[in-house]
Amino acid sequence: MTLDLAKIEATLLAAADAAATRTLPLFRTPLAVDNKLSEGFDPVTEADKGAETAIRAVIAEAFPDHAIIGEEWGSSGSGPYSWIIDPIDGTRAFISGAPVWGTLIGFARDGVAIAGLMSQPFIGETFLAVPGRSTYRRNGQTQALRTSGQTELAPSRVFTTTPSLFRTPELMSKWRAIESATRLQRFGMDCYGYALLAAGQADIVIEPFLNTYDIAALVPIIREAGGAIACWDGSEPTGGGNVVAAATPELLEKALELVNAS
Amino acid sequence: MTLDLAKIEATLLAAADAAATRTLPLFRTPLAVDNKLSEGFDPVTEADKGAETAIRAVIAEAFPDHAIIGEEWGSSGSGPYSWIIDPIDGTRAFISGAPVWGTLIGFARDGVAIAGLMSQPFIGETFLAVPGRSTYRRNGQTQALRTSGQTELAPSRVFTTTPSLFRTPELMSKWRAIESATRLQRFGMDCYGYALLAAGQADIVIEPFLNTYDIAALVPIIREAGGAIACWDGSEPTGGGNVVAAATPELLEKALELVNAS
Repeated sequence: MTLDLAKIEATLLAAADAAATRTLPLFRTPLAVDNKLSEGFDPVTEADKGAETAIRAVIAEAFPDHAIIGEEWGSSGSGPYSWIIDPIDGTRAFISGAPVWGTLIGFARDGVAIAGLMSQPFIGETFLAVPGRSTYRRNGQTQALRTSGQTELAPSRVFTTTPSLFRTPELMSKWRAIESATRLQRFGMDCYGYALLAAGQADIVIEPFLNTYDIAALVPIIREAGGAIACWDGSEPTGGGNVVAAATPELLEKALELVNAS
Repeated sequence: MTLDLAKIEATLLAAADAAATRTLPLFRTPLAVDNKLSEGFDPVTEADKGAETAIRAVIAEAFPDHAIIGEEWGSSGSGPYSWIIDPIDGTRAFISGAPVWGTLIGFARDGVAIAGLMSQPFIGETFLAVPGRSTYRRNGQTQALRTSGQTELAPSRVFTTTPSLFRTPELMSKWRAIESATRLQRFGMDCYGYALLAAGQADIVIEPFLNTYDIAALVPIIREAGGAIACWDGSEPTGGGNVVAAATPELLEKALELVNAS
């Protein structure tokens, strides 16, 4: 069976549009998570669940025989093809009004993500990959994504969501090793960090304890832009785990060596 | 002498527009800070200096007898009225392509900022205050900024740029006290955190070692939105120092008590 890549791309974009109709009305609302006027109403949960429902409907109509794995509504279906969804990656950013959350939708064949999308609808940005191409779209314009091409640790710019993710002394020593070996560290980015790596604006992103829906969509966006991504033991990251992404295969190898030696 | 507030507002907006013509073309360029193809060319420094020059020109034409204090080009003039400029607050965000940097322009009378602007031109957002009014502008629409109204520490959402700012054990114990007393902490925001506090999306922002140009513009944006801001010793923060901002005067008082007891 040949994959219809144009249909996969169209489905990613349509699903992201559907998700935005459920997330944007709840972003930066005065309804804070525990606002006394809205007892029991959690806008993030509402946005998360509503967006995943909308995404699932678009996928199920286009590809009724594909599996779907979502953060909010679990798994459905089985087979070689799966769609992996995080309707709002970066919940803390969403809660706090920072426009660095994203809607993630990945498409995997035999457990390896080969197409994916990260959408930031407040800014109006879409990062999208299909086999052979990783692109950035905004304001009706599309441009190719390319990583920085960096191959060395010393000048690298590193992103991680927060150092407190490295919650054991062993993990912290790995973070400290990366921190000491690189030029600039930046926190608080969630999925946005990986998207910026694909765009050449960061050189390394490292995070432990990822779920498949945190990372699957981003894997092809990084790889098709010239980057490399793996679990710390070198295995395929589509399923989640402790992950490092880098601008080049050479830089990934150096980061993995350092992490595994620390 | 009566202040011409309409002219001050128009000058803030015109200066921000002028700055954007110097910052946006250098944001997310492939010219990384130490790209080998561009030896000696630092896009952040270029954008910073160019933007401040553009801002100064607009102010000097509108108010030739006012003082100007800028991060890049120092102080000029003297007298009761001063304009305080940080052309790019959030240099790390700018370098790394994250749209959470801002152009800051404050206007102070006798050392207290009474009008100010924070502009994020990539997203197209402007946070602006003049006496009596703090507003958010995007896509040609203007709405009033209001803080969350939060008065308690326990449910508060706290922003700081990075915990590593609290670089002595004494400072770190103050951060830890705030961290333990509050519900959610978020890093990596620079000026954007204060703007989101004015918009009701964060309840506390705390940072040590601020310069006047890091904070002056944000002081009226917070106060005119119902928030409160002070140095940790309770003094006026327009001049910089160790600063805490809060959604309400009650919450500020509780945060200050905690910081000074830790």
